[in-house]
Amino acid sequence: MKLLRFGEPGTEKPGVLVNNEIVDVSAFGEDFGEKFFETGGVARLQEWLKKNTSLPKVGKDVRIGAPFTRPSKIICVGLNYTKHALESKMDIPKEPIIFFKSTTALVGPTDDLIIPRNSTKTDWEVELAVVIGKKASYVEEKDALDYVAGFCLHNDYSEREYQLERNGQWVKGKSCDTFAPMGPYIATTDELPNYNKLHMWLKVNGQMMQDNNTDDMIFEVPFLVSYISQFMTLLPGDVISTGTPAGVGLGFKPPIYLKKGDVIELGIEGLGEQRQVAK
Amino acid sequence: MKLLRFGEPGTEKPGVLVNNEIVDVSAFGEDFGEKFFETGGVARLQEWLKKNTSLPKVGKDVRIGAPFTRPSKIICVGLNYTKHALESKMDIPKEPIIFFKSTTALVGPTDDLIIPRNSTKTDWEVELAVVIGKKASYVEEKDALDYVAGFCLHNDYSEREYQLERNGQWVKGKSCDTFAPMGPYIATTDELPNYNKLHMWLKVNGQMMQDNNTDDMIFEVPFLVSYISQFMTLLPGDVISTGTPAGVGLGFKPPIYLKKGDVIELGIEGLGEQRQVAK
Repeated sequence: MKLLRFGEPGTEKPGVLVNNEIVDVSAFGEDFGEKFFETGGVARLQEWLKKNTSLPKVGKDVRIGAPFTRPSKIICVGLNYTKHALESKMDIPKEPIIFFKSTTALVGPTDDLIIPRNSTKTDWEVELAVVIGKKASYVEEKDALDYVAGFCLHNDYSEREYQLERNGQWVKGKSCDTFAPMGPYIATTDELPNYNKLHMWLKVNGQMMQDNNTDDMIFEVPFLVSYISQFMTLLPGDVISTGTPAGVGLGFKPPIYLKKGDVIELGIEGLGEQRQVAK
Repeated sequence: MKLLRFGEPGTEKPGVLVNNEIVDVSAFGEDFGEKFFETGGVARLQEWLKKNTSLPKVGKDVRIGAPFTRPSKIICVGLNYTKHALESKMDIPKEPIIFFKSTTALVGPTDDLIIPRNSTKTDWEVELAVVIGKKASYVEEKDALDYVAGFCLHNDYSEREYQLERNGQWVKGKSCDTFAPMGPYIATTDELPNYNKLHMWLKVNGQMMQDNNTDDMIFEVPFLVSYISQFMTLLPGDVISTGTPAGVGLGFKPPIYLKKGDVIELGIEGLGEQRQVAK
């Protein structure tokens, strides 16, 4: 299933994507959040859809929101692709680096990017994000995929001065409003068995900047879920963003950062595309 | 007002502390969370209490929960007391270090501390926590206190190996279950005009470990609220924990860490006391 949410910010309704058309599933009575995932919502919705076959369809011009309601946390993995670690002039990690992103950064996949006041180093990062399906604490790697509901596309926007030059802890450069466009949809795990071999790319003003594959990750999804669950409890609906490949603005000589009017487009095979305009 | 929540984990009810007695304010119909603070709940509850003077009282033996429902984020400030920075062998920060703590760590003030599996370096940190009262983005320092609903006591438990020796970003050592006892109550700002001059202390097994005053902070509350709001939007109910003074386990030679059976007691003048047993 492909789960999404459509409508104006704050009043999104749940939908599913079927043959590239949005089907309104508001009548199911639940939004895609912690409670939905916690109570086996994915399987329940699938059953419900079999019995409810004449649901309203939604026009193409509707705004798409983030594909889930505000999670308890967005956890990001740092330097999880070899060449990106090298371009960032950092060591290849011996174990995953993790940091948080404020959930207030969450927006839909085509919402504007608001460049923060006084920012001069706003940068892009195409990433595969994992949506947790059930409460996970001290999970073993072999069982970890059972705790995943699905995957989605994420642009982990980062202000490099705030992240790296403002005295510590990356969260400072990761949490500005609009810095976490997610979606257009969550592909449930059954839709994406090859989640570890997906083409991923990002363009700025039409120029390809990141062009890689999730098979280049240093620490893979089951390991990451297991690893993070040793340090904290993951709740249904929580998001783990698994890191970005080489090609971010920071890695160029001289670095390239975003300015007002820039158009950022990105995609991951099987997870749709995003497009943001920097404002 | 002193706001608190009582009852078993997950089913706490709202109350207020009056003359050291807990008054049940369930009949007000709102819990102490984002929506309550966002809609001027503190002032509305105060008015409501004037008209509802014969409310049920609650016995002393009831469990006290965290004094607010799960916030969108818990933001912590690192090394915000000079001697603590020195004992941690780190530089005195030129601007605040900020990091997040998973909200799944949140517990009541007398709940057990669960030492994480395989942990050998679980440490304590008495801190003054600030509860945000209204949405804050790019707030000026002179206006910052208008965005604060109140203050509470927090023990910012920290696993030093996870935080400092496991390859990056402190959140890893700050987010284990039970690592954020908050409460017993929120003192609203009008109750605590001298929030910047409060005695704070922490004992382990009866021995005084931290004994200091909030007047020793490097970056004060209005500055912190303003500063953090430049990097992210603060929501009503969000928590900023303002750092700990010297006397943590890490600072001793050799370091002292918590073991099962240890009793941790702490307090801040005007904000009550906590007591945890390590399990």
